[in-house]
Amino acid sequence: MTTSHISRCAQLAMLLEVSATPKPGNIDRDHNYADTRFEHFLASAVGVFPILEKAARSDSGAGSLIREAVLESSKWQKGGNTHFGAFILLIPLVMAAGRCDDIEGLKVQVKKVVRRTTVNDAVEFYRAFSDAGVKVKPVKDLDLTDAASTEKIRAQGLTLFNMMEISAGYDMIAEEWTNGFQKTFECAASIQNKIKKHGINDAVVLTFMELLSKYKDTFIQTKFDYAKADEVSIRAKNILKTDDMDDKMHNIHSFDDELIKNGVNPGSTADLIISGLFVSLFEGMRF
Amino acid sequence: MTTSHISRCAQLAMLLEVSATPKPGNIDRDHNYADTRFEHFLASAVGVFPILEKAARSDSGAGSLIREAVLESSKWQKGGNTHFGAFILLIPLVMAAGRCDDIEGLKVQVKKVVRRTTVNDAVEFYRAFSDAGVKVKPVKDLDLTDAASTEKIRAQGLTLFNMMEISAGYDMIAEEWTNGFQKTFECAASIQNKIKKHGINDAVVLTFMELLSKYKDTFIQTKFDYAKADEVSIRAKNILKTDDMDDKMHNIHSFDDELIKNGVNPGSTADLIISGLFVSLFEGMRF
Repeated sequence: MTTSHISRCAQLAMLLEVSATPKPGNIDRDHNYADTRFEHFLASAVGVFPILEKAARSDSGAGSLIREAVLESSKWQKGGNTHFGAFILLIPLVMAAGRCDDIEGLKVQVKKVVRRTTVNDAVEFYRAFSDAGVKVKPVKDLDLTDAASTEKIRAQGLTLFNMMEISAGYDMIAEEWTNGFQKTFECAASIQNKIKKHGINDAVVLTFMELLSKYKDTFIQTKFDYAKADEVSIRAKNILKTDDMDDKMHNIHSFDDELIKNGVNPGSTADLIISGLFVSLFEGMRF
Repeated sequence: MTTSHISRCAQLAMLLEVSATPKPGNIDRDHNYADTRFEHFLASAVGVFPILEKAARSDSGAGSLIREAVLESSKWQKGGNTHFGAFILLIPLVMAAGRCDDIEGLKVQVKKVVRRTTVNDAVEFYRAFSDAGVKVKPVKDLDLTDAASTEKIRAQGLTLFNMMEISAGYDMIAEEWTNGFQKTFECAASIQNKIKKHGINDAVVLTFMELLSKYKDTFIQTKFDYAKADEVSIRAKNILKTDDMDDKMHNIHSFDDELIKNGVNPGSTADLIISGLFVSLFEGMRF
């Protein structure tokens, strides 16, 4: 598969994710936030293309590539952080895709790619956080506002994989790095199972709801707390029990309105949808 | 400007056009047709990227490049013809952009690119029509269902520019080729004038309405007749006279509902929006 083909799969994954509606609480084709709009996500997905191609050609440097993706994205739009979490998943997946031809190869290669990261990757990744304007600490004991943190990373000899290992217990994106992208592949299988019956939009929406019902969203947990993330998961689970499909979609719409109103956005679950869509498109899913 | 940068401008132009809502009568983020959906336009814009890059590197072969774009688009989605009219405008503009640095250069170069087309470009373009599944005759006396037509093109020594000259009197897209892409540059100026006050979505919607009010849409004229295209232009003109912005947007929404209901889609005006957005992004427009 060419680097161009792989990169287009990643780009289309970002576009399909942000378009799918309603994805309760998140920006989609029908919802904007005050400063970040649907169009900012389109521009970010377009802008990052050459970094995706570079990743598909690269054996190493995941940390730098994530940082380059963040910087390139911000050159194309003024909406702030759009795809940071998505890049953390997409960059190693795209690197792995450049080294294999099928999903089994992808599973093997992506494990190798993340384990091969270095201390320099960790430092670059750390810098990407401030470039992206993300206000959380990537690792609990390392403060982004503290310039000495990169020194600590070097002194402790932490690779980017090591940093993800530290965060994996409380961050579902970091956990993907350490568990072979398990939820990503689960997400891909779910979308592909649903696309024939429900079409691409609803296949994404229903998979989003399933992930949300099963896994507490890290972004909500960071912005609010564990209890709020748990509450959202339980609500999603109950809505999915609705038998009638029209009623179910109606309930998803109401849930969306409620989360939007309260500023509860399951951003990490959206990132998983992007990585799952990438895997599906890489496997040849069309619609 | 790199070929990658130019191609990303073209890709983002396609995405912003199809997203802008409501664009009366056309597919947008809130409207699908039965067989062609919003997501098919996203996939087409993504899929065509390498052909855009090739065009930005090319001095000749506009006809083949348009055909390649049509074929590549159809590999990425099953919605049928999405961007054929847009490619007829974008391909020469992207080729021209690869040979200059600013809008004045673009105006000069795009005239040269279209005049440099050959008989072979005409034949390839002709074949692209059937590849795209477009059911109209590109030139009045040449029947697409007649295999002898390409022989006629060769016998008459018609270049692609000559074919556009023949069609220019009744086809606004062909006319762009012969008048130095006048409406494209007018469209670009209008979008850029409006973006600060109205934001990207409404700048596109208002410019779409302005073009529609001033020029009879070729696609409507072909699907219905001159009278229908004229009626749509007059309606658009009257709606634009509304003083209050909220009332105006409300009237545009009603107009959209009515056109959608009656299957009246101003597809050629949408193609001009794409070429105008491309020029704006090439000039550095960001949002």
